[in-house]
Amino acid sequence: MTPEAFVARVSAAHPGDTDGLLALLDSGMLDAQGILAILGKTEGNGCVNDFTRGYATLALRSALTERLGRAPRADLALVMSGGTEGGLSPHLLIFGKRAATAPAGGKRLAIGVAHTPVLQPEDIGRSGQLDATIAAVHAAMRDAGIDTADDVHYVQVKCPLLTMARIEAAQARGRNVATHDTYASMGLSRGASALGVAVALGELPRGRIADADICHDWSLYTGRAATSAGVELMHNEIMVLGNSPRWGGTLAIAHRVMGDAIDAPAVWGALADLGIEARGQVDDAARERIVAVLAKAEASSSGRIRGARHIMWDDSDIHATRHARALVGGVIAGVIGGTQLFVSGGAEHQGPDGGGPVAVIARV
Amino acid sequence: MTPEAFVARVSAAHPGDTDGLLALLDSGMLDAQGILAILGKTEGNGCVNDFTRGYATLALRSALTERLGRAPRADLALVMSGGTEGGLSPHLLIFGKRAATAPAGGKRLAIGVAHTPVLQPEDIGRSGQLDATIAAVHAAMRDAGIDTADDVHYVQVKCPLLTMARIEAAQARGRNVATHDTYASMGLSRGASALGVAVALGELPRGRIADADICHDWSLYTGRAATSAGVELMHNEIMVLGNSPRWGGTLAIAHRVMGDAIDAPAVWGALADLGIEARGQVDDAARERIVAVLAKAEASSSGRIRGARHIMWDDSDIHATRHARALVGGVIAGVIGGTQLFVSGGAEHQGPDGGGPVAVIARV
Amino acid sequence: MTPEAFVARVSAAHPGDTDGLLALLDSGMLDAQGILAILGKTEGNGCVNDFTRGYATLALRSALTERLGRAPRADLALVMSGGTEGGLSPHLLIFGKRAATAPAGGKRLAIGVAHTPVLQPEDIGRSGQLDATIAAVHAAMRDAGIDTADDVHYVQVKCPLLTMARIEAAQARGRNVATHDTYASMGLSRGASALGVAVALGELPRGRIADADICHDWSLYTGRAATSAGVELMHNEIMVLGNSPRWGGTLAIAHRVMGDAIDAPAVWGALADLGIEARGQVDDAARERIVAVLAKAEASSSGRIRGARHIMWDDSDIHATRHARALVGGVIAGVIGGTQLFVSGGAEHQGPDGGGPVAVIARV
Amino acid sequence: MTPEAFVARVSAAHPGDTDGLLALLDSGMLDAQGILAILGKTEGNGCVNDFTRGYATLALRSALTERLGRAPRADLALVMSGGTEGGLSPHLLIFGKRAATAPAGGKRLAIGVAHTPVLQPEDIGRSGQLDATIAAVHAAMRDAGIDTADDVHYVQVKCPLLTMARIEAAQARGRNVATHDTYASMGLSRGASALGVAVALGELPRGRIADADICHDWSLYTGRAATSAGVELMHNEIMVLGNSPRWGGTLAIAHRVMGDAIDAPAVWGALADLGIEARGQVDDAARERIVAVLAKAEASSSGRIRGARHIMWDDSDIHATRHARALVGGVIAGVIGGTQLFVSGGAEHQGPDGGGPVAVIARV
Repeated sequence: MTPEAFVARVSAAHPGDTDGLLALLDSGMLDAQGILAILGKTEGNGCVNDFTRGYATLALRSALTERLGRAPRADLALVMSGGTEGGLSPHLLIFGKRAATAPAGGKRLAIGVAHTPVLQPEDIGRSGQLDATIAAVHAAMRDAGIDTADDVHYVQVKCPLLTMARIEAAQARGRNVATHDTYASMGLSRGASALGVAVALGELPRGRIADADICHDWSLYTGRAATSAGVELMHNEIMVLGNSPRWGGTLAIAHRVMGDAIDAPAVWGALADLGIEARGQVDDAARERIVAVLAKAEASSSGRIRGARHIMWDDSDIHATRHARALVGGVIAGVIGGTQLFVSGGAEHQGPDGGGPVAVIARV
Repeated sequence: MTPEAFVARVSAAHPGDTDGLLALLDSGMLDAQGILAILGKTEGNGCVNDFTRGYATLALRSALTERLGRAPRADLALVMSGGTEGGLSPHLLIFGKRAATAPAGGKRLAIGVAHTPVLQPEDIGRSGQLDATIAAVHAAMRDAGIDTADDVHYVQVKCPLLTMARIEAAQARGRNVATHDTYASMGLSRGASALGVAVALGELPRGRIADADICHDWSLYTGRAATSAGVELMHNEIMVLGNSPRWGGTLAIAHRVMGDAIDAPAVWGALADLGIEARGQVDDAARERIVAVLAKAEASSSGRIRGARHIMWDDSDIHATRHARALVGGVIAGVIGGTQLFVSGGAEHQGPDGGGPVAVIARV
Repeated sequence: MTPEAFVARVSAAHPGDTDGLLALLDSGMLDAQGILAILGKTEGNGCVNDFTRGYATLALRSALTERLGRAPRADLALVMSGGTEGGLSPHLLIFGKRAATAPAGGKRLAIGVAHTPVLQPEDIGRSGQLDATIAAVHAAMRDAGIDTADDVHYVQVKCPLLTMARIEAAQARGRNVATHDTYASMGLSRGASALGVAVALGELPRGRIADADICHDWSLYTGRAATSAGVELMHNEIMVLGNSPRWGGTLAIAHRVMGDAIDAPAVWGALADLGIEARGQVDDAARERIVAVLAKAEASSSGRIRGARHIMWDDSDIHATRHARALVGGVIAGVIGGTQLFVSGGAEHQGPDGGGPVAVIARV
Repeated sequence: MTPEAFVARVSAAHPGDTDGLLALLDSGMLDAQGILAILGKTEGNGCVNDFTRGYATLALRSALTERLGRAPRADLALVMSGGTEGGLSPHLLIFGKRAATAPAGGKRLAIGVAHTPVLQPEDIGRSGQLDATIAAVHAAMRDAGIDTADDVHYVQVKCPLLTMARIEAAQARGRNVATHDTYASMGLSRGASALGVAVALGELPRGRIADADICHDWSLYTGRAATSAGVELMHNEIMVLGNSPRWGGTLAIAHRVMGDAIDAPAVWGALADLGIEARGQVDDAARERIVAVLAKAEASSSGRIRGARHIMWDDSDIHATRHARALVGGVIAGVIGGTQLFVSGGAEHQGPDGGGPVAVIARV
């Protein structure tokens, strides 16, 4: 069978909203079995106590279970990313696979998914998590039928974080953890996962990375991962997006690396790779071709953007990741002319310091 | 004497930082007497309890007093606007007037300032404040030597807000106030002030506006005002910026109205009016010509941006004005390629619902 | 059959945690059918975008459905109250009814529940909601077998709030709503519901209350209600707690009204009514008798507590209800010596301005 | 000359409010030269970007300078502590020294002040800061005329924190700093300072403390220090409060250590030491004798209070110190019956984990 990737973007009225998903299933365009992953931007704070991710996950899983009459496939990835600061609009990106009549005759969007085994609290932010991620990315590439890392444009990873309870559990077993700061654990988890992708895609040699480099040596990064941490899981969920000649359909993906948070030209570059030549803001016709925009946002560790001071790290009311998502969301919205953008925060080792990958999926 | 407008943009390391101002005075480019106004973006929350504005005002006034050996001129406008969300960078815009050898031979940036009398708490957000603003805008235009409202491109107004103490004081005198919600009073004050500008510039007839329309009928607005509320004053401070053939120098100002928060094309439009033709992000050479970018940001009251839901009004952790500044800051930073942008929140009656004016000052 | 009230307090590790509930059911002390209501303190912000309430509700309902093999009884009240500021500890209070062998020979805790019909957005914070609440309180008293309002000590009401979508829906039908400020709608909904309880319990005559008094005339209040607003429902859920000679068991309830937020003596008073005479902090033996402590917290509208200024209303980073819960939680924790306290915010018309009811359930 | 300690508590309407100070000077009860220290509770967030401390410091210093006609004494300690969460009321505690006719015939409140030299960023949170603090505490004891550490009941330390700029400055000189997390630097600075007090007062031997123990080994602590970090200074300011037979007047000080955040009995204990026997809340007569209440608040690192989970460490919207101040403020307000309490956050090494010192100054 020739597979065809299916990507739908549906609005979410609140984190427990499953109406968009159910309407899609009702439409007959995709059956519930064909769903490989759902990425959601939810309106929590994207930090430790963001329970909108767990809520959305529970709601989506319950809705699918009710629709299917049984639990959904074990490898279904539900990747909720909290934080819709600025003008970002809560939405779901539903990724599926269905049968195409034939390959498209060119490279088309290909999707593969995989999970790591359950991680222990003491693995988070360390080699244990990193190595498990490498294996899972390779498994997801095989699942996608993508042979070469060059054809991978985006790897979405959902990863766990430490809570007080998890830290205590590890300590009760005589293990230490990478950090006692629950908020900091989110960064370490995202960072270790990103470096796992970098190794898996050949961007960095495994031997180059020691545990002490994680969230420390920012010269080490991948240009093609988005990792996001949530309290509701204890393993890494992986989805690989790339282009493959074996797939049918009309979708393709491209990416660029934003050199800093205001690198709008990177967005124009990714659009151009998909044949969308925009001068200034994308026009209505081109905007209709765009199915999904995915990007990582991060506050530069220098405290500056092109020499001008930002206050993200010194703000004790609003976390730096929240500022960064708002900023990058604004930069991309100005180019795209829309706000249903999957901008997630915490870009540790995902793109250069202060920057991050941006990927666009569009009809070609 | 032919006047020449002077505009300097200096970084602020914290709200009490006066080093940039003092260095400018040390440079001899402007003397302390020549300063007409200082606009500052400070890193507070821009809401009721943003004391960074009062702090910066006290610090600047103290520094000028020490330098001058006496208190600065009574009509010196110190307009601090709190809120540097997203990537916005704290900075001061110092506006001054100095002698030019001759008029420039074309229209050049002209500056005028004025104050209203002290307002009573019961005037805030009502006709009392609105009418006082009309008179003060006209006084500031006369001060600037601008004859026609068409040549006015930006009117900065700093206006007061209600606190519990002020509400109680009014009630003790038997007066009622426009609102008992201190946060809401900021919007009403900004709104009444903006409508005052609209009438003063001929954008709206005075008879069209009743007290009940203030912060209610959003079809009423000015395209050329930025009003900002602070706890540290009880009158309106006005600064008019426009172009005039009577002034010398090399600076000019242009403006456009952003139709919504992601209307990046409005920014390109204002740049084009100043002879800066940018496709995509402004290049380094053109960016050096840009001296100041001033814009208003606001969450659309519909809860939507081009049809997509935003969460600004439903977020009880971060105020809507903070989200809006971050968003508009990102949109403009993507065009300009820099983050020292004077984006202030609370655009009630300043531009259409969800949008707002954007002005650029550049060397021509 | 003689009923016996059952009250269990179980810890919650996160808003979706149902382990405590399931362990209770496993213990055989109560069967799932016997549960009348679950009150939960969840760790959201307790404001508009607090989705921990909806999350906990979905999780509890799903867990009960799975345990029962069908949906739980239609009148099961799941009343989640967000906000565990200060030291408040997230927990569930599970209220149930089971068979006793005989009446206790004295008044014992009695429980009754009822729901209003679904409310329209335009009813919220107005007479429509108030009158529906009166009827539902009376229905809940009948359900509890409590004949006289004097024996009612606490009425828990969960009520809806307005969101942008609900406001738009009402407007689309040509109706106006009580407020366009979604956060303010929570207060109006709580206030109208509380006044409904006041009328139902004979504390106020119905004719004394006009729509304009709701959240305006603070001299009108009940001393025995706790109302809490959430986005996840559109009707009022009512639970009446009182003492009745028809019930068995060992539990009883008492209440006092805190005159202001630091009225610790009210707590000692309620304890004394239950035979717990504490000088200073309750000792360990007495603390073990205490099953539940329920209180309402509110910032005084004067901006003062016993003459000293508080900053709750002027704080744009942390909502006043959050400050108030933290404060009252601290005051009560100092007396009780524990932090699993059901302190909920938003005490509009629940106790005098700045104060609120406090109730204690203990073994007698 | 026999000295007499003078302590006045004055309300603050906002962080720049100096009216209370000026009214005190106008009253003739104390002259400006006699002021040794001013402690202020300001209404900022008490974290990195709390500029209310710098604002209040600038305003007070400016007011004193204007009153004196010259800068105030170099060793004047202005110790602003941000954070009035819950019901805490912004206020100033003005500590001064004036001439008494004779010693009181019993031990009376004695005050001494001292400063460390300017610290380097790389000293903060390390031995450099700790050792400088030891010397400064001893200097302040000598200044107070207190011979024995047993007579010291409270040591107030104001200490610096790291900002991005300071970190960069140290790095530019080739030095590393204790942390790159500006928020974490506040804790390290407070912790090192507190351990310095512990050594100075003989509570711990110097040799027991290594740099790695700071903010790590919580078994090390002082029961008599309150340290508070602010961005506006780069040295430690020390004020020692104790009782001495050499001083006159009617004031005395007592302290206890709160074992956890809800240890209200410690407050009753300190009151009893001063002859105030309260059962429950302090009555009006006794409350008038109380001049100042000073306490430290901290979230327990275990995530629990007497076994019940708190959410302070997992809350990414409100910092743990803010929760802790609100909680302890409520506990103490319930005992004292008032909210002008100097509760400051960040009790690293000040009292046991989750607890902290509480001191009361009253007329005896």
